[in-house]
Amino acid sequence: LISRLPNVGTTIFTVMSALASEKNAVNLGQGFPDFACDPQLVDAVTHAMQQGLNQYPPMAGVPVLREAVATKLKALYARDYSAASEITITAGATQAILTSILAVVHPGDEVIVLEPCYDSYVPNIELAGGVVVRVPLKPGTFRPDFERIAAALTPRTRAILINSPHNPSGTTWTAQEMQQLEALLAPTDVLLISDEVYEHMVFDGQVHQSAARFAGLAERAFVISSFGKTYHVTGWKVGYVAAPAALMAEFRKVHQFNVFTVNTPVQYALAHYMADPAPYLGLSDFYQQKRDLFRAGLANTRFKLLPCEGTYFQSVETSAINDLPEADFCKWLTSEVGVAAIPLSAFYGDGFDQRVVRFCFAKKTETLELALEKLQAIG
Amino acid sequence: LISRLPNVGTTIFTVMSALASEKNAVNLGQGFPDFACDPQLVDAVTHAMQQGLNQYPPMAGVPVLREAVATKLKALYARDYSAASEITITAGATQAILTSILAVVHPGDEVIVLEPCYDSYVPNIELAGGVVVRVPLKPGTFRPDFERIAAALTPRTRAILINSPHNPSGTTWTAQEMQQLEALLAPTDVLLISDEVYEHMVFDGQVHQSAARFAGLAERAFVISSFGKTYHVTGWKVGYVAAPAALMAEFRKVHQFNVFTVNTPVQYALAHYMADPAPYLGLSDFYQQKRDLFRAGLANTRFKLLPCEGTYFQSVETSAINDLPEADFCKWLTSEVGVAAIPLSAFYGDGFDQRVVRFCFAKKTETLELALEKLQAIG
Ligand SMILES: CSCCC(=O)C(=O)O
Ligand SMILES: CSCCC(=O)C(=O)O
Repeated sequence: LISRLPNVGTTIFTVMSALASEKNAVNLGQGFPDFACDPQLVDAVTHAMQQGLNQYPPMAGVPVLREAVATKLKALYARDYSAASEITITAGATQAILTSILAVVHPGDEVIVLEPCYDSYVPNIELAGGVVVRVPLKPGTFRPDFERIAAALTPRTRAILINSPHNPSGTTWTAQEMQQLEALLAPTDVLLISDEVYEHMVFDGQVHQSAARFAGLAERAFVISSFGKTYHVTGWKVGYVAAPAALMAEFRKVHQFNVFTVNTPVQYALAHYMADPAPYLGLSDFYQQKRDLFRAGLANTRFKLLPCEGTYFQSVETSAINDLPEADFCKWLTSEVGVAAIPLSAFYGDGFDQRVVRFCFAKKTETLELALEKLQAIG
Repeated sequence: LISRLPNVGTTIFTVMSALASEKNAVNLGQGFPDFACDPQLVDAVTHAMQQGLNQYPPMAGVPVLREAVATKLKALYARDYSAASEITITAGATQAILTSILAVVHPGDEVIVLEPCYDSYVPNIELAGGVVVRVPLKPGTFRPDFERIAAALTPRTRAILINSPHNPSGTTWTAQEMQQLEALLAPTDVLLISDEVYEHMVFDGQVHQSAARFAGLAERAFVISSFGKTYHVTGWKVGYVAAPAALMAEFRKVHQFNVFTVNTPVQYALAHYMADPAPYLGLSDFYQQKRDLFRAGLANTRFKLLPCEGTYFQSVETSAINDLPEADFCKWLTSEVGVAAIPLSAFYGDGFDQRVVRFCFAKKTETLELALEKLQAIG
């Protein structure tokens, strides 16, 4: 048996969560909250199930949920998407990204990824038969390097994948950076896959610069987000993608033969819950407090805090603690100190090691305080 | 934009369900029940959500559910699968089939499908870059034709897809037919993808001949099933795949970068619910009564009933009613008679038309009686 993905092992998130649970460590590795979602959301799922809404929904998602997403995108990003033909509900953002790639990338097409990047992007491109073109974000700042992106564009470039707010670094693209991308792509047919799963977690008064805001990007973009991240239910596996009708038609051809549809009662519950924008509008403040608590706890340690403009991840430089490579550092930290983290090297094809690891601060105050106590003890 | 799937439109199931709802017809087209699932199952999902089981489960599925599936497969098919390394929970059977194909089919590999077949198989193979090799089931009886299958095997054959109980025809493979396939594949490396989503719907005292029962098949097989079909919750989108560890390792590489995981509370609820085998053991009797009711209602009409050994589908020959081609017949039946059906031509690459349409009898007695009244009026 010859593997289709010879370079793929088990994801780092799974590996570190397993080690955390084996060592009974505080798990600040894999990105998920340890607190409860709003009980109203649970009740809404129960209500839908009890109403008998348990059979196949329409392939693209239940119309009320697609309408709710269209309303949000219009309100926040001033872009009109047709709920009928331009929005599809997906089994999480990861499925949306693979499906987008399978829908538009032909064998031999080049797809640009900006490293460090989420670990599904590269195997997704490989499964479509695409050629992965890796362009680094600027070393140290993790900001887009437009000279290098421009140099990577060729007549074979089919698409570029971007992610802001950025996992793992926590940087967010500015409006000016989005405009630079828009200008760069204007003379090309290159498609954009914009992973915006942390769209509602941007700090210090920023607004999220969605690709949907920029006409020259939106017209070529799959804009992807996650209900699981926004509503503290990562295990429900539900997200969405918005794209112009012609792109969406291709997306749905693949979607209907991948998962076909997404859990019906969860869709109805989310539609009901989205009627109130307060939960997602308040999310940035909610996570900013957690970020500030976590950063304050590490401020007087030898962990060197990197900026955190968005996401629920805080990256830190570790070389003043010891000289372990990132992956070994994370294993040591989990086993010996009792706090799990994720090495940034897992987000690079060549395992580039800059002695930076990522903590997830989507945790209860007690959890963060317990972790900080352990980190301060060695910091 | 050049399509990756130029021959794909919207699935016939979506088209006919939309027409049925527009015309207010009785929908015996798309396969899903119109009755409620067991309220205990709903309560179990609610319980899991209220316990806070709403974050990412392990990538392959929650261990208790994988254990429950292993226990079932051992009890029914006398095969030991390791819950740890040989069973994965999927977002429905369709996702399991695509993921199996993406995991093992390399560009240029040949994959055999037996026509008529479910409409996702061919685009799934095309997305992997595979070459589709269509072999017809025997005309009229829809039974496997081993001479033609043998003739289709080449050194480039990577896999064969089978489906028993068979959608759309309702035939089931006998133990002898499974043994013939086993003998045919014995000297080869050809993999088997066995779509067994109707495994718990076999009639007249038969037992389901799972690929898991036959050592020479099980060692090369992805055995795929659906909780949605078994437990009357098609909209929950949850299924499973069982395969030897080496195959499963490749499956999981793709799975983790497609949907990554499946709805956590639903998984816990299913694990709890599966502890009692009565619901799935009783399913064949439950559906046999519906089949018999439906067949009795058409017995004295000009609809010619084909055999129905399994599934919740009854196919009928329509040429004594009128001479419309199948697709037109289904549109006419939906619009003018008020009963939606699915044309068998939708299950053939070349649209082969034998004047046979498929009804789904997974419906309440009242629904079936209403449909029968309308069909008798023109029959
Ligand atoms: C799908 S598991 C990983 C969760 C996540 O997005 C992360 O930790 O980066
Ligand atoms: C996924 S929609 C189709 C349901 C089904 O299996 C069928 O009607 O054949």
